[in-house]
Amino acid sequence: MRKELLEVFDNTFPERDYIIEIVNPEFTSVCPKTGLPDFGTITVTYVPDKVCIELKSLKYYFLDFRNAGIFYENVTNTILDDLVAVSQPREMTVKSEWKARGGITETVTVTHSGRKA
Amino acid sequence: MRKELLEVFDNTFPERDYIIEIVNPEFTSVCPKTGLPDFGTITVTYVPDKVCIELKSLKYYFLDFRNAGIFYENVTNTILDDLVAVSQPREMTVKSEWKARGGITETVTVTHSGRKA
Amino acid sequence: MRKELLEVFDNTFPERDYIIEIVNPEFTSVCPKTGLPDFGTITVTYVPDKVCIELKSLKYYFLDFRNAGIFYENVTNTILDDLVAVSQPREMTVKSEWKARGGITETVTVTHSGRKA
Amino acid sequence: MRKELLEVFDNTFPERDYIIEIVNPEFTSVCPKTGLPDFGTITVTYVPDKVCIELKSLKYYFLDFRNAGIFYENVTNTILDDLVAVSQPREMTVKSEWKARGGITETVTVTHSGRKA
Amino acid sequence: MRKELLEVFDNTFPERDYIIEIVNPEFTSVCPKTGLPDFGTITVTYVPDKVCIELKSLKYYFLDFRNAGIFYENVTNTILDDLVAVSQPREMTVKSEWKARGGITETVTVTHSGRKA
Amino acid sequence: MRKELLEVFDNTFPERDYIIEIVNPEFTSVCPKTGLPDFGTITVTYVPDKVCIELKSLKYYFLDFRNAGIFYENVTNTILDDLVAVSQPREMTVKSEWKARGGITETVTVTHSGRKA
Amino acid sequence: MRKELLEVFDNTFPERDYIIEIVNPEFTSVCPKTGLPDFGTITVTYVPDKVCIELKSLKYYFLDFRNAGIFYENVTNTILDDLVAVSQPREMTVKSEWKARGGITETVTVTHSGRKA
Amino acid sequence: MRKELLEVFDNTFPERDYIIEIVNPEFTSVCPKTGLPDFGTITVTYVPDKVCIELKSLKYYFLDFRNAGIFYENVTNTILDDLVAVSQPREMTVKSEWKARGGITETVTVTHSGRKA
Amino acid sequence: MRKELLEVFDNTFPERDYIIEIVNPEFTSVCPKTGLPDFGTITVTYVPDKVCIELKSLKYYFLDFRNAGIFYENVTNTILDDLVAVSQPREMTVKSEWKARGGITETVTVTHSGRKA
Amino acid sequence: MRKELLEVFDNTFPERDYIIEIVNPEFTSVCPKTGLPDFGTITVTYVPDKVCIELKSLKYYFLDFRNAGIFYENVTNTILDDLVAVSQPREMTVKSEWKARGGITETVTVTHSGRKA
Repeated sequence: MRKELLEVFDNTFPERDYIIEIVNPEFTSVCPKTGLPDFGTITVTYVPDKVCIELKSLKYYFLDFRNAGIFYENVTNTILDDLVAVSQPREMTVKSEWKARGGITETVTVTHSGRKA
Repeated sequence: MRKELLEVFDNTFPERDYIIEIVNPEFTSVCPKTGLPDFGTITVTYVPDKVCIELKSLKYYFLDFRNAGIFYENVTNTILDDLVAVSQPREMTVKSEWKARGGITETVTVTHSGRKA
Repeated sequence: MRKELLEVFDNTFPERDYIIEIVNPEFTSVCPKTGLPDFGTITVTYVPDKVCIELKSLKYYFLDFRNAGIFYENVTNTILDDLVAVSQPREMTVKSEWKARGGITETVTVTHSGRKA
Repeated sequence: MRKELLEVFDNTFPERDYIIEIVNPEFTSVCPKTGLPDFGTITVTYVPDKVCIELKSLKYYFLDFRNAGIFYENVTNTILDDLVAVSQPREMTVKSEWKARGGITETVTVTHSGRKA
Repeated sequence: MRKELLEVFDNTFPERDYIIEIVNPEFTSVCPKTGLPDFGTITVTYVPDKVCIELKSLKYYFLDFRNAGIFYENVTNTILDDLVAVSQPREMTVKSEWKARGGITETVTVTHSGRKA
Repeated sequence: MRKELLEVFDNTFPERDYIIEIVNPEFTSVCPKTGLPDFGTITVTYVPDKVCIELKSLKYYFLDFRNAGIFYENVTNTILDDLVAVSQPREMTVKSEWKARGGITETVTVTHSGRKA
Repeated sequence: MRKELLEVFDNTFPERDYIIEIVNPEFTSVCPKTGLPDFGTITVTYVPDKVCIELKSLKYYFLDFRNAGIFYENVTNTILDDLVAVSQPREMTVKSEWKARGGITETVTVTHSGRKA
Repeated sequence: MRKELLEVFDNTFPERDYIIEIVNPEFTSVCPKTGLPDFGTITVTYVPDKVCIELKSLKYYFLDFRNAGIFYENVTNTILDDLVAVSQPREMTVKSEWKARGGITETVTVTHSGRKA
Repeated sequence: MRKELLEVFDNTFPERDYIIEIVNPEFTSVCPKTGLPDFGTITVTYVPDKVCIELKSLKYYFLDFRNAGIFYENVTNTILDDLVAVSQPREMTVKSEWKARGGITETVTVTHSGRKA
Repeated sequence: MRKELLEVFDNTFPERDYIIEIVNPEFTSVCPKTGLPDFGTITVTYVPDKVCIELKSLKYYFLDFRNAGIFYENVTNTILDDLVAVSQPREMTVKSEWKARGGITETVTVTHSGRKA
């Protein structure tokens, strides 16, 4: 995915830990095995450090997955890696919840901590 | 915003920690980028110290945002700052949950502690 | 309020900590400012010690608020004080959740611990 | 309201009666008595004749009510009159559902028939 | 009840049949047998003729029932009679839905037609 | 069942057709085959003529089924027959909705008209 | 399917039209194309004439589909045909609602009238 | 769209009118104005005549819209036209319900009758 | 109650702590004061040690309360005592949630630990 | 059950702990006592180590239970044992929630930790 689509803006309250949750219930990608579309909801929750993620650019970044063949686990880890790379958050969790295929649903939840141990 | 609109009254049970939660599902402000209105729910949760926040004055304070161009993160941090300034609570959390724009929703949660470490 | 309306009965299982939750969704009092009625749900949760609170007497105690002018915070703290006085519970929480006024709702939660530190 | 904001486009299936329903849950105007904001959901249901109503222009038309002092009944009848004037539908219904004020909600439903008797 | 509390205002769209629905989920009266309070939701639906019912006056009219001992069926028929007397609607329905007593709920629905046969 | 438990009171608005709905979600009887209890919700809807059914007496009438072995269809038809006999309504419907047995639920709906053809 | 599994019992209220609805949310059969199981809810609604359908026998009849390869439309029409054959109802509707396959759900509704035209 | 993707199979119960409802909550196309994706639910309800629509082929037909720029009204009418052409149903309705854009949702409902007047 | 009705079977996975939750939403007993029936939901949650509780025998044990006059608190503590006596679990919680009486509901939650301190 | 049906694939993000939740609401097995089918929902939650479980193979593994006579507790523990054997997860929980039998539902929750103490 083109993570260069992602834009950030200055966090004007960096002295305070606070939580931003972004939910996109209109995510779609393609199953690399069957070529059929997958539909899911992506939830990004993070504590910003120096910058926040700009919502419109995030939307365009998500659109890049529309015709990409990629597994559930990779979608989730890739989004986390890209968002961490551009925004260096104090903490971030990415959750993907997928519509049923063959009567079975899957949810993948990945967490990153940017705090020093 | 005019925080001088906010009024407080004496907490008649200051010897006890207790929790007050105020929910305003009819909050609206304006996106500074597009000039279009944003709609959200503001939830204020706090442990009062010497004073409690007067509900009607809080309502008028919220109305001040109706035609103001201001980002989600700033709405939330500003409300917290103003309410802390006038009521000096033991603890306070402000959460703003916004209606979808471009299919994506955002929630911002900010917390303040007035207790001494 | 007439806390003498409240009756208790012996806790027949005092050797065990257990939890009793009582919910009254039909509580009403009067706003002392406007003279208009307020409607709310009162939830009492407690760990009984020597006695339990008799439900029917609690109902009559609640009815005493029907035409009383009293603020949300005072309703909640008063109920806690009265119930603690008559039942000396090991722990007790009183929560009041109020219907919207001017589009805004409030919830007040007060807790008492009767355990020795 | 400025009904000249409303735009239409050609109905490409005029040989068939069909139903278009548009729901705006983010409508707000101002109470002419109290000066306080009202919040509601507007639902427009119609059978187009020669033209359909363009959604984005409808959104801007609705925004015109944001700071207007106008009663529930007039909001509803005015929207119907304006939409009928610009789109001459075969049938149209406008419904407005308002958030509670003083614990009481109101819904207004107005219907127009453009068919010849 | 004092129906003289009820106020009306001119219907500015009398040439059109339209429907106004008013819901009061905070209605309370007293059971004439037990003296205990009843709680219910009153829904008034009508087609106005020359006048509409003013909401605030309706609220004060409803408050008159707060300490009145009156049966479910009489509450409902009385409200219909009083509202018809002051507003002469083309059609009106009053529905009262009551909270459970002894595990049993009751709903009463009364309709009036002011149209000439 | 002892239909003599049922009491009625005068309908004070007999000039008007109106609808009374009574719901009892706490009905229980016994399956005559297995001896095991059945649980259901009984809904009685009727247009009263000269008399209305007294709620408390109806409750005691329903209690009579608690230890009676009787099939779903017979419960429903018997309640209709007994209520019609004592109240001679203009119209009456009795519906019984039963909790699942062996994963299967049943609902029985019986209607009586007392109007002359 | 073995319709001989179905048992009936005498309708003791044949002079009256009444409605029996039976819901089985635990129906399963096998897709004849893929060999994979299908899951659905079967709803049977009928007006009995001389006999009613015995619930336990209906349950065993439904179990016969568990390992049968049969399409949605045929399941529904076959159940209707078999139930009509054994119970000769005045009216009967069979509805089958199927869990999603490939993100798409299907519902089939079939009706039979046993009344003479 | 390629309606040649659609397959049908023989209706084995043509002597009976019955209803098939197919729901696809995972429909997506592209807005021809903005180039951004639209998401919706398509519901097809029909009474088959000589043939039924094969579900898997319908799914592939729907996939053809994934990257097509097409308005809501045209999506709905086109699906109806194509399904009528290949299956000649006795009656058919196509409904499309779209996720909010700019806070506003739209639903389009189109009906065809294949019965002779 | 006859706790001798309760049967147990060997826990085939005793090397592992695991949780069994049993919910009976069809519990009924009798109020010892009024003689009227009470209705509730009983939830038993436990970690089995050497034996598990047999479900059908538990059902018959619960039936024993049907015509017994017993208070909420005693129902809950008695069930816990009896189930602990026959199954010696590592941990067990019994919760009873009661339908409203006089508009007020009660829930009682009792916990036992069989682990050595 | 044939655990050899289960397939795994390499975890491409082994450096990170993350959570995969798989829900199958279409699970069915057979009660070994009565021979009647049981229906339930199986939820598998795990932190993968070197491999992830392939969804389609898991589906076929679950199908193996369709005609097997096996108790709730054994279903749950067996699934855990088999999935642990093939995927050696860092942590895994299997929960089975069963549809009501005789009005009573059961849920079994089993947990395994693969981390070294």
